[in-house]
Amino acid sequence: MSELASSPAKIIDGKVYAERLRAEVAREVAQLKADHGLQPGLAVVLVGDDPASQIYVRSKGEHSLAVGMHSVTHRLPGDTQQAELMRLIAELNADPLIHGILVQLPLPKHLDERAVLAAINPDKDVDGLHVVNAGRLASGMPALTPCTPLGCMILLRETVGDLSGLRAVVVGRSVLVGRPIAQLLLQADCTVTIAHSRTRDLPAVCREADILVAAVGRPRMIRGDWIKPGAAVIDVGINRVPFDDPAKAAAGRTKVVGDVNFKEASQVAGWITPVPGGVGLMTVAVLLQNTVTAARRLQGLA
Amino acid sequence: MSELASSPAKIIDGKVYAERLRAEVAREVAQLKADHGLQPGLAVVLVGDDPASQIYVRSKGEHSLAVGMHSVTHRLPGDTQQAELMRLIAELNADPLIHGILVQLPLPKHLDERAVLAAINPDKDVDGLHVVNAGRLASGMPALTPCTPLGCMILLRETVGDLSGLRAVVVGRSVLVGRPIAQLLLQADCTVTIAHSRTRDLPAVCREADILVAAVGRPRMIRGDWIKPGAAVIDVGINRVPFDDPAKAAAGRTKVVGDVNFKEASQVAGWITPVPGGVGLMTVAVLLQNTVTAARRLQGLA
Ligand SMILES: NC(=O)c1ccc[n+]([C@@H]2O[C@H](COP(=O)([O-])OP(=O)(O)OC[C@H]3O[C@@H](n4cnc5c(N)ncnc54)[C@H](OP(=O)(O)O)[C@@H]3O)[C@@H](O)[C@H]2O)c1
Ligand SMILES: NC(=O)c1ccc[n+]([C@@H]2O[C@H](COP(=O)([O-])OP(=O)(O)OC[C@H]3O[C@@H](n4cnc5c(N)ncnc54)[C@H](OP(=O)(O)O)[C@@H]3O)[C@@H](O)[C@H]2O)c1
Repeated sequence: MSELASSPAKIIDGKVYAERLRAEVAREVAQLKADHGLQPGLAVVLVGDDPASQIYVRSKGEHSLAVGMHSVTHRLPGDTQQAELMRLIAELNADPLIHGILVQLPLPKHLDERAVLAAINPDKDVDGLHVVNAGRLASGMPALTPCTPLGCMILLRETVGDLSGLRAVVVGRSVLVGRPIAQLLLQADCTVTIAHSRTRDLPAVCREADILVAAVGRPRMIRGDWIKPGAAVIDVGINRVPFDDPAKAAAGRTKVVGDVNFKEASQVAGWITPVPGGVGLMTVAVLLQNTVTAARRLQGLA
Repeated sequence: MSELASSPAKIIDGKVYAERLRAEVAREVAQLKADHGLQPGLAVVLVGDDPASQIYVRSKGEHSLAVGMHSVTHRLPGDTQQAELMRLIAELNADPLIHGILVQLPLPKHLDERAVLAAINPDKDVDGLHVVNAGRLASGMPALTPCTPLGCMILLRETVGDLSGLRAVVVGRSVLVGRPIAQLLLQADCTVTIAHSRTRDLPAVCREADILVAAVGRPRMIRGDWIKPGAAVIDVGINRVPFDDPAKAAAGRTKVVGDVNFKEASQVAGWITPVPGGVGLMTVAVLLQNTVTAARRLQGLA
C-alpha cells in the first residue's frame, strides 16, 4: 500500500483547489486565444425562474467570463414549449462560437428532460450527462465527464497523488455521481468497490477503503469507526438539517452537512473534505475545464 | 448472507442452460410470429476467410434458423473496402426484416473496426458493442448487452437465484467482458468489486466474493485457496495450453482451460463453470435472445 496520510486528517480545502483550477483554466484560455485564435464558449440555458437555479446559472456565467471565455446565458420563460427548447439546442449545436452547452436542471415538469439532454451534441455536453458520454467513459474512451465526479478525482490526485492499486469504495451508485466516480477511480487503476442501499455490512465494506467516497444523501451516515485509519475520505453529500443547537433548531434554522460524520471521521481519516467547503466548490471550476476540453477537441487540438 | 451452496462444487453445465435458453427463444419466436406476424431477423457479416470466424459464423446462422428466425449471412471477400462495408451496414440498418446485425470480429487490418461498429444502429447492435449501448448499460437504461456477460448472469440466476446483497468480485476490466459483467452484477444489486492487473493482494480480494467472475486470460491463475467456501465461480477464460501429459504435450497437442484452477476450486466453491463446457456455450444462445429483444423493442413490443 502507498503511504497514506496519518490522522487526524488533513482537511481538503475545496476553495484552494477550485481557485487553482480556475487559474489554470484562465491560463489555458489565454493560451488557446494566443496560439490558435480560439476562445472557448459556454452557453447556459435556464428555463423558468427557480431561485436556486438562477443563482447557479448566474455563477456559471460570471465564472466563465472571469476566465476569459465567451459566455452566453439563455433565459427562457417557464412556459417554454419542448419544440422551442429543442430549436435552441439545435442552434447551439451548430454555433461555432459555442463549445459547451449546459441546460440547468431540473427543467419544468412539462418538458421532457431526457429528450433535451439527448439532443445536445455529445462533444458539447460539458455536463457529461449524454448517454454517449456515459458510454465513452464506460469504454475508456475520451469522454466529457460529469463535473462533480471529476472534481472528486482532482482533489484525490492533488492530495493522495498516484491512486494506482489503492482500494476505493464508492457508497452510492447514481448515474450522476456514484457510477461515474467509480469509472474514474477504475481508470486511475484503483481496485473499486461500489456499495449501495442493498449492501450488507456497509461499515465493514467501508473499512476496506484507502479511498472512501460517500455519495448517498444521508446526513452524517458514515461514522468514524467505518473508516480505515489514514484513508482519504471524499464527502459528496449535501444534506440540509436542523441546527444542533436546540434554540436555533427551534427557530427553524438549518445548515448543510455531508454524508460523513465529520467530527468523528476527521479523527481517523488521513484526508477529508468538509461540507460545505469541499467537493461542492469544485463543480463550477470543472465545468469551465470541461468547456476548454470540449473546445480543444472540437478544434482537433486535444 | 443468502444460503450459498456447499462444497465440493455443483458443476454448472453450460450445455444444459444454453439448450434451455435456445428452447425458450424458439418459443418466443413462434409466439411473436403467431401474435404479431413478427419474425426476428439476424444478419451476420463476415469479411475474409479466417477459419475460426467461418466456424463461428456458420454456427450463428444455423442456430438462428433452428429457432425459427429469419437469418442472413453476408460473406465478403478479404479485400472488401471500408466504403462497401459501410454501405452494407447502412442497408441492414434500413432493412425492416433485420433486427440484429452482427459483424464478426476481428476484421481484416485495413478496415476501421471502430467506425464499422459505430455505424450499426444501436437498436440492432445485438453484440452490444456500440458506445450507446455501453452508455445505456452504465446508465441503467434498457440496452443491448454483450452476449458473454449476459450469459454469465443467466447462469448465476439459474443457480444462485437472487443475487441481491451478495458480494461479487470481477477479475478483469475489459470493455468487452469485465466491465459489462460488473455493470450487470450491480444492476442485480450485488456489492461489486472490480479487480485487475494493478490490484494488490488479489487472493484476499477474491476471498471476499460470494460470486467470483474470472475474465483475465491467464490459464488457471485463480487457485483453490483464493475462493470463499460455497462461492459461485464463473470462469470466462479461454486459454489454450499444452496437455499435462508430457507425451501429448511433446507431440504439440493442446487443450483449452479457464482462468480458474478447476481441480482445486471445485473442492471449495459452491458452484463452478467448467472450461470448456461452461460460459462459452451460452454466447450464441444469448445472441439469439438479444435478437428477439431487439425485434420486440424495434416493434414497440418490449
Ligand atoms: N457536491 C456536489 O456538487 C453534488 C453534486 C450532486 C449531488 N450531490 C449530493 O450527493 C449526494 C448523492 O447524490 P445522488 O444524486 O447520487 O443521489 P441519489 O440519486 O439519491 O443516489 C443515492 C445513492 O445512495 C444509495 N443509498 C441510499 N441510502 C443508502 C444507505 N442507507 N446505505 C448505502 N447506500 C445508500 C442509493 O442506493 P440505491 O441505488 O440502492 O437506492 C443510491 O445509489 C446527495 O446528498 C446530493 O445532494 C452533491
Ligand atoms: N467464454 C467466452 O465466450 C469468452 C468471450 C470473450 C472472452 N473470453 C475469454 O475471457 C478472457 C478475458 O477476455 P478479455 O477480452 O476480457 O481479455 P483482455 O481484454 O485481455 O482483459 C484481461 C483483463 O484481465 C486483467 N489481468 C491481466 N492479468 C492479470 C493479473 N495477473 N491479475 C489480475 N488481472 C489481470 C487485465 O487487467 P488490466 O486492465 O489492468 O490490464 C484486463 O483487465 C480471455 O481468456 C478470453 O479468451 C471468453
